[in-house]
Amino acid sequence: MDSNTFGRIFRLTTYGESHGPGLGGIVDGCPAGLALSEEDIQQELDARRPGAGGRGEAAGTARNEPDRVRILSGVFEGLTTGTPIAFHVDNTDQRSGDYSALARVFRPGHADLGFQVKYGLRDYRGGGRSSGRETVSRVAGGAIAAKFLHTLSITVRACTLEVGGIAASLDDSAGAASRPWFCPDPHTAAKWDALAETTRKQGDSIGGLVRVEILGLPAGLGEPVFDKLDARLAYAMMGVGAVKGVEIGQGFAAARLKGSENNDPLLPACGDNNRAAGHDFVAASGTLPGGAGYGFASNNAGGVLGGMSSGAPVVITVAVKPIASIGQEQRSVDRDGKPAGFTAGGRHDICAIPRVVPVLKAMAALCAADFLLLQRCARS
Amino acid sequence: MDSNTFGRIFRLTTYGESHGPGLGGIVDGCPAGLALSEEDIQQELDARRPGAGGRGEAAGTARNEPDRVRILSGVFEGLTTGTPIAFHVDNTDQRSGDYSALARVFRPGHADLGFQVKYGLRDYRGGGRSSGRETVSRVAGGAIAAKFLHTLSITVRACTLEVGGIAASLDDSAGAASRPWFCPDPHTAAKWDALAETTRKQGDSIGGLVRVEILGLPAGLGEPVFDKLDARLAYAMMGVGAVKGVEIGQGFAAARLKGSENNDPLLPACGDNNRAAGHDFVAASGTLPGGAGYGFASNNAGGVLGGMSSGAPVVITVAVKPIASIGQEQRSVDRDGKPAGFTAGGRHDICAIPRVVPVLKAMAALCAADFLLLQRCARS
Amino acid sequence: MDSNTFGRIFRLTTYGESHGPGLGGIVDGCPAGLALSEEDIQQELDARRPGAGGRGEAAGTARNEPDRVRILSGVFEGLTTGTPIAFHVDNTDQRSGDYSALARVFRPGHADLGFQVKYGLRDYRGGGRSSGRETVSRVAGGAIAAKFLHTLSITVRACTLEVGGIAASLDDSAGAASRPWFCPDPHTAAKWDALAETTRKQGDSIGGLVRVEILGLPAGLGEPVFDKLDARLAYAMMGVGAVKGVEIGQGFAAARLKGSENNDPLLPACGDNNRAAGHDFVAASGTLPGGAGYGFASNNAGGVLGGMSSGAPVVITVAVKPIASIGQEQRSVDRDGKPAGFTAGGRHDICAIPRVVPVLKAMAALCAADFLLLQRCARS
Amino acid sequence: MDSNTFGRIFRLTTYGESHGPGLGGIVDGCPAGLALSEEDIQQELDARRPGAGGRGEAAGTARNEPDRVRILSGVFEGLTTGTPIAFHVDNTDQRSGDYSALARVFRPGHADLGFQVKYGLRDYRGGGRSSGRETVSRVAGGAIAAKFLHTLSITVRACTLEVGGIAASLDDSAGAASRPWFCPDPHTAAKWDALAETTRKQGDSIGGLVRVEILGLPAGLGEPVFDKLDARLAYAMMGVGAVKGVEIGQGFAAARLKGSENNDPLLPACGDNNRAAGHDFVAASGTLPGGAGYGFASNNAGGVLGGMSSGAPVVITVAVKPIASIGQEQRSVDRDGKPAGFTAGGRHDICAIPRVVPVLKAMAALCAADFLLLQRCARS
Repeated sequence: MDSNTFGRIFRLTTYGESHGPGLGGIVDGCPAGLALSEEDIQQELDARRPGAGGRGEAAGTARNEPDRVRILSGVFEGLTTGTPIAFHVDNTDQRSGDYSALARVFRPGHADLGFQVKYGLRDYRGGGRSSGRETVSRVAGGAIAAKFLHTLSITVRACTLEVGGIAASLDDSAGAASRPWFCPDPHTAAKWDALAETTRKQGDSIGGLVRVEILGLPAGLGEPVFDKLDARLAYAMMGVGAVKGVEIGQGFAAARLKGSENNDPLLPACGDNNRAAGHDFVAASGTLPGGAGYGFASNNAGGVLGGMSSGAPVVITVAVKPIASIGQEQRSVDRDGKPAGFTAGGRHDICAIPRVVPVLKAMAALCAADFLLLQRCARS
Repeated sequence: MDSNTFGRIFRLTTYGESHGPGLGGIVDGCPAGLALSEEDIQQELDARRPGAGGRGEAAGTARNEPDRVRILSGVFEGLTTGTPIAFHVDNTDQRSGDYSALARVFRPGHADLGFQVKYGLRDYRGGGRSSGRETVSRVAGGAIAAKFLHTLSITVRACTLEVGGIAASLDDSAGAASRPWFCPDPHTAAKWDALAETTRKQGDSIGGLVRVEILGLPAGLGEPVFDKLDARLAYAMMGVGAVKGVEIGQGFAAARLKGSENNDPLLPACGDNNRAAGHDFVAASGTLPGGAGYGFASNNAGGVLGGMSSGAPVVITVAVKPIASIGQEQRSVDRDGKPAGFTAGGRHDICAIPRVVPVLKAMAALCAADFLLLQRCARS
Repeated sequence: MDSNTFGRIFRLTTYGESHGPGLGGIVDGCPAGLALSEEDIQQELDARRPGAGGRGEAAGTARNEPDRVRILSGVFEGLTTGTPIAFHVDNTDQRSGDYSALARVFRPGHADLGFQVKYGLRDYRGGGRSSGRETVSRVAGGAIAAKFLHTLSITVRACTLEVGGIAASLDDSAGAASRPWFCPDPHTAAKWDALAETTRKQGDSIGGLVRVEILGLPAGLGEPVFDKLDARLAYAMMGVGAVKGVEIGQGFAAARLKGSENNDPLLPACGDNNRAAGHDFVAASGTLPGGAGYGFASNNAGGVLGGMSSGAPVVITVAVKPIASIGQEQRSVDRDGKPAGFTAGGRHDICAIPRVVPVLKAMAALCAADFLLLQRCARS
Repeated sequence: MDSNTFGRIFRLTTYGESHGPGLGGIVDGCPAGLALSEEDIQQELDARRPGAGGRGEAAGTARNEPDRVRILSGVFEGLTTGTPIAFHVDNTDQRSGDYSALARVFRPGHADLGFQVKYGLRDYRGGGRSSGRETVSRVAGGAIAAKFLHTLSITVRACTLEVGGIAASLDDSAGAASRPWFCPDPHTAAKWDALAETTRKQGDSIGGLVRVEILGLPAGLGEPVFDKLDARLAYAMMGVGAVKGVEIGQGFAAARLKGSENNDPLLPACGDNNRAAGHDFVAASGTLPGGAGYGFASNNAGGVLGGMSSGAPVVITVAVKPIASIGQEQRSVDRDGKPAGFTAGGRHDICAIPRVVPVLKAMAALCAADFLLLQRCARS
């Protein structure tokens, strides 16, 4: 719960602005003995770049950085050593153009006002610290967390549920990682491309919904009472720029269900029998005190009960607002409170979703890694 | 970001279970010199009790504690001294009945499973630490925070937007605190009563939506990048039992707006002129660098831009699931994974909303107090 | 590193003043499944009281509280549940006398000035939060930590090395717990009694040295680089009132040794052979990577190497200043900076040592418990 | 109180090993608007290097890095922006020699054993993370803190009190920064040179004592009860490699004084009158509630009363052990617990003092900066 540090044991501290020398971070508390290479991190950074596998070309435009990561410490002979893992990515594609117009006006929907009022000054070049580039460090940190999760057979995945009001189906969410827009079905990305293209021509922007899942997370993770698993996930997700809503499982829909509809009955592990009997069966990771497996007849809870993982998949839905920078002129004020029309120049994306998906995935991985370590301290 | 401690400077640490001697907490970091009495806390605790002003009688049933708070430290001659403020509330209405049936079965929708798997044992009497009674400590801590906010003319208020799918209007949200169900209009509470009564007869339960507002919060609060104002608010709200979703401002609706619709234009402070011109005008708390006031043409952002307060009212909507304990029999398993039907005995509420509203208000107050103190460290 | 919270995983948060209703604290992060009773805590509190086994009667005088502890949460059927363990001790022996004289003058050697300048007001009755009574909460928290250490065969013990310049020998430090003044030999306590008596008649006070040992601590505990084992121990010890110096192993004497004298050679585990060869041998707790035991030819390092436990006994020496409250008149100033003679009225001890020894022991136990839990997160 | 993060508001997180690409860190929480350049940091790094002004040539030998620092974020147009300040220093002078012998044997007096047992593996090249090079990051972070202190007219200074048992006088401690060995008098450094030279020929090493002072610190800093000013200073100092003891003011000597000798009487501000009357007078920074200044007749407390600054100079004495790497052969064991003679090859210093002094100064500056910010939250 520190400004630029995330986590309690597995801790990521980040730095960097849009137009400074670069961005990076330090992962402190990563367990020793984990195989880790620059390539492990690079893969995730590449997924965040325009033109990469999961990217919607039509959504982005704009800045294109190679984003080569260097590990500066904490790895020896291919294994983490328990000491801090620092990493750095150079900024190479800053356009040096004249940002001085931004120094006096506050862009609607942006952090400009907040930074100015909070600190009394701000680095207005490209959004400074509030630039989307800040998320490079999150993705890199999340890649290290994901490597740790992998050793425990835990996977985080994410896909795009909806863009500009057009919903995809979850027909093949496992394949989303390799599709444009991280689309969970084979058909909808084309519609999103078309919408993005139209929106671009209108000088406007769009938002959407993202689904994040943690698979294989054992039951019992999360810390009552303030630091619940869902509380920390909400914190992690809402802390990503452009996110305006977070729900777990049925989320807002649960507010309209009856208890008898919303509760997920627990079932014995023999899922086949359950399914044979015509019930759905969601298998849980982990075992009951007596050693038996178990599952649920549904997963309305989204894998979280009483703030702790239930063993069912953790399911999070995140609302992403339309990008604040648009081509149309908008009303605003300057530092003196005078009216000032503002039109975003330079490059800007039409939709944040393709860049945000890997970031949300990274944040979920960081949460899971931290709670897994904390859990080691739970019993005498 | 600790299990039972909330906040970084203004810090609340809590303890207590449903059937132990009592509940309480320690507020560390409350500024010295604040006028504080037991009565300040008691008022908020009373608002949380059945039969109190804001309570929906039909929603609750059940346990009725006097909940008298005692301040044990940190106040001298009516003022806080800067040292920890400890408070305690006795449990007086535990029903001593036989809880041993709960020891072996996991109630669907509850934390039972999580506690058992996490810790290897659990206090199953009345939910133990995961009982709704845990929130007594949150409300008490929040009352201290609210007292601090009051000195800065900052107010937190909350109301019920919807119960079991029946929505209220925001006609008079200022009056919600004194109405049944904390209803923001004079008419809808009666419908909620009727729905609750029907639901009770069905042996079922209902959920709903709550709106929390922070009024008068100056711009610039919240800490980039991880500890954003909205991130911490989401953390605070989602950490309350039964909460499954959190949104800021337009929230999920923003995901379907265009940027040109969602952005809130900044306006000069002369609100009358703006309104005269037929524009809406949301006045902001605080001033621009040159000393001028300002406002917005709308508040889709819910008072948060780039993770920092914008000066507009902070608006949070929270989804509360239906209460997990219902009168109907439900399928579950026991400790050995054997099927076990479960029917909740004893008292249980039909809807958590009337108890949750003061808790969410308290959590928002704790967030605001902490960020106000952190802000004092922002400038050289 | 928070004001009134100690530890990172095993965390103690305390409250209470000399003349408030009582003192207590919350232990958060204690592993579940630990056997714990009020009696476990009471024993340690009793050791801190005048007239108890280890007390030097001549050193104290004064306030005599029964100090009955109540556990308020976190224990169920004799076992810790993983939830916060709150405890409380009533203040029963506050003398209600007139403290108003203390409101205007700053007692030399006390925290009065600091509290006044820091907070703008202070609870001047009996020292308020800076009273020695604050340590009741430390001792109680430490008792819980010690119970956890006990399950791992780790022991913390402490004895008095020196009082008013008169040194004891370490002939029987194992027996110190049951001797007056926690004296490590059978003879010196009588001299300390005599010195204390003389000092009392002079209206003066004395200090001394305390030795704290942690036995059985496995190698590798402590966190590079800032949170080293010795760093945290120094923090813990120096945070106890009246402590003015801390050293580990040879401490200040090491500054005058050569490297060849100060280094502790590592030896194979076969201690008998080593001793047969005329070498000293300090056996270490723990094993080398290949599974072999080991030891050291000496323990100048005091069981800490590079900030981590070496497996040898951890040895800390602490300097305790003479009690600031003395019977003689002293020069001081009042709130307006005017000269004001001050003579301590009421009861006050002659030497803090007999009360401080259990407190230092408690702080060492809290450190060890926390690092043992952190260590569980060190490896993948 | 995290492994590689120091501080609560003004927070330094560091990384880097002896033989990795480089070392660096992130300062989070530095107030915005502070003038800061790479040169500000470089000056302090230069003071840490052999051959620089304060260095004792005879003490060192060995590795000579240019240690050019780069600021990577958080500074815009010469001012800090409130966002994290990252800095990096390349390692350029690693000798690539064969370190494989060190992989199997544990060097006496070093962290080798701890790292191996803690993490199951270690980077044995040049000490890895436990190398003295780690302190580069501390000195850089401390330089940023010192810049902040400078704006408040607070100064940290340090000098060498004693080397190998040969004491200097404090005749001119203000001039120590520019003398060899940071010697506080003009004469003693030559003796230390001679002793170092003799010691080198003997294949041995020496330690010593360092005095650190914080001048101008206002009264009331430090947080009761666990996070006292002296507690945190002890933590900060003891966390530096080779430090084995810390005392405040009279420290261990206070344990042998009477209360009447050790207490520092408070005096009215009119220091001249006091001195005219033949009293010593130590002026305090800050004012009493009524606005008057004040001082003390002595400063045995070393500027700390009840864990808070008293306004008098803060005086810390630190014991530094002799360097563990010596030219003589020493007994040790290998990974299998077999006896293994060890002789340090390569370069190693004779005495750590000249390198440690700037590090201790940096740690004191970090402490002071953090407490100054925390103090802003103390009052309503």
